[in-house]
Amino acid sequence: MSRFFSEKYADLEPYVPGEQPQDQEYIKLNTNENPFPPHPAVVEAVQNESRRLHLYSDPECRDLRRALAKRTGLREEQLIMTNGSDEILNFAFMAFCDRHTPAVFADITYGFYPVFAQINGVPYREIPLKEDLRLEPKAFYQTAGTVFIANPNAPTGYALTREEIQGILEENSYNAVIIDEAYVDFGAESAIPLIREYDNLLVVQTFSKSRSLAGGRLGFGAGNPELIRDLEAVRYSINPYNVNRMTSAAGIASLEHDDYYMKNSKIIQENRRWAGQALKKLGFEMTDSMANFLFVRHPKADGETLYREAKKRGVLIRHFNQERIRDYNRITVGTREQMEQLVRVMEEILGGMA
Amino acid sequence: MSRFFSEKYADLEPYVPGEQPQDQEYIKLNTNENPFPPHPAVVEAVQNESRRLHLYSDPECRDLRRALAKRTGLREEQLIMTNGSDEILNFAFMAFCDRHTPAVFADITYGFYPVFAQINGVPYREIPLKEDLRLEPKAFYQTAGTVFIANPNAPTGYALTREEIQGILEENSYNAVIIDEAYVDFGAESAIPLIREYDNLLVVQTFSKSRSLAGGRLGFGAGNPELIRDLEAVRYSINPYNVNRMTSAAGIASLEHDDYYMKNSKIIQENRRWAGQALKKLGFEMTDSMANFLFVRHPKADGETLYREAKKRGVLIRHFNQERIRDYNRITVGTREQMEQLVRVMEEILGGMA
Repeated sequence: MSRFFSEKYADLEPYVPGEQPQDQEYIKLNTNENPFPPHPAVVEAVQNESRRLHLYSDPECRDLRRALAKRTGLREEQLIMTNGSDEILNFAFMAFCDRHTPAVFADITYGFYPVFAQINGVPYREIPLKEDLRLEPKAFYQTAGTVFIANPNAPTGYALTREEIQGILEENSYNAVIIDEAYVDFGAESAIPLIREYDNLLVVQTFSKSRSLAGGRLGFGAGNPELIRDLEAVRYSINPYNVNRMTSAAGIASLEHDDYYMKNSKIIQENRRWAGQALKKLGFEMTDSMANFLFVRHPKADGETLYREAKKRGVLIRHFNQERIRDYNRITVGTREQMEQLVRVMEEILGGMA
Repeated sequence: MSRFFSEKYADLEPYVPGEQPQDQEYIKLNTNENPFPPHPAVVEAVQNESRRLHLYSDPECRDLRRALAKRTGLREEQLIMTNGSDEILNFAFMAFCDRHTPAVFADITYGFYPVFAQINGVPYREIPLKEDLRLEPKAFYQTAGTVFIANPNAPTGYALTREEIQGILEENSYNAVIIDEAYVDFGAESAIPLIREYDNLLVVQTFSKSRSLAGGRLGFGAGNPELIRDLEAVRYSINPYNVNRMTSAAGIASLEHDDYYMKNSKIIQENRRWAGQALKKLGFEMTDSMANFLFVRHPKADGETLYREAKKRGVLIRHFNQERIRDYNRITVGTREQMEQLVRVMEEILGGMA
């Protein structure tokens, strides 16, 4: 820390991204990347756009919002585009929380929420998930704060139904409610259709997972036009050119080839089912994940050991050294071949421990 | 404004980017874009990288920092990469200013500084430029705050020498000093060589102007490793994947073809000289700009009128409706052909007023 660093950040604990070791090739099942590359039309669109990089991108993201509006059935003024969904989440912490309006989220959820709260000097309250790691919707009624819910939740994978989300919206009519749908396209229900009815709802999505664009950084917020205008005021006060030309072109091309991505999503869901079954046969227990990852534990091996032994064998999975979930590992669902290799490695590890 | 918007932003006035009208084709001399496209190697690098967009970018930007370290003669731990230089500027306001540490900058300078101060709840003090719009270095001695100086300054184009910057650093040993060198490659002296000696110096640069990458969004901060660590702590608390794969690849390829960009910069400087002379013959007065723009006024026409009349004739220039500089317009220096058209249009406008 330099002598110039503001003391307001004295206790700041930055987010820790999933490891990206360079020492050898790994089967990377630790950051929930999509195993399928972007559609060829994305590569072509990016290439064309890259010839115009000397010109600023459109700060209003008009073409991209138009394409996304068409796809989601929303109007353009209900959408704001950002540099990944982390950026729109941060904007929401800035716009809808302050010293008097705490953030409220589950004790086990996306690890960035408490960091966003800290960096913005916002108090926060964690609501415990139930014993079985499911979220109790009623625990999020009348929160007296701005609600952040990842749905499906990370790293558990459990999803709320749209009806349960609706209940939370009804019972928080004085609070903004942010539903973070990073993983929604792998089998859960989106809250987007509720935007028309609820002016307190902001839905956050990303192109990183189901649309194979993690390295392109594109996220968005969807909500009623007043909420969006607030978030735009924040964006125009921080980084109006936040979405570059190439990312914008990649996003538009992705939306034009939705069939490809939805087909990949089906394959991933099928691989999730297959890998889940195979791991159960090895004695693993797991949540009912609706995301592109499994959240598993084994009664005879602790989570840290499994993570370490898998890494030794060239398979990276993600272990969270956090109360309540230390026994678990989060495993990205990749291709069938990757899942077969994962199962073989787990079999070997457990065999060695018997 | 929605009923959920934090009252801390009640008086927020977001930044207003240069207009991008869609009603007709303009000669766009209003946002200081480089008229030359990126080097073909950039297009190729981006295309190759776009096939890997399903994988996250490297949050540590190792390859990019390595290439930039080589180019600048700095070490990798002296560099932080951001989504345009606006992002690193905002990080600096966050890290090095707070309620007790005001931001200090000129009254006429980059219009985003007061916005960054506002959005971060930071008090700020404006130090007037001299009557002739030059910056008096001594006015920035012992500021009791964090100093932000655009060098060359925008929109005046005047540059301080490295020695003058050094004087400011010497006389602010208790304050962080941010030198924003967005336009430095068009003839001014960079403060980068001073980093070794001054632990209170952060130099900010962008690939947007001299490296023809405005639409790619790449900026960076350079300073001593402790300063950089502070800024990294902020970055990892907001958006660790802020630089996407395509932008990173574009940046690396740009650095490998520096000759091309430095040659373009020379052409732009020559066009600046030519256009300055031609406008002087029409009676214009102007600052001694070291940037890729001219800052001009005419004793017989007010700035707003010149801006409006030029727009009618298909040439966009930038007028700032701001005290002290209302008479002026900022005109991007483009190709020789664009400059000739600009001069013809100005001649026509002034002829019509005579």
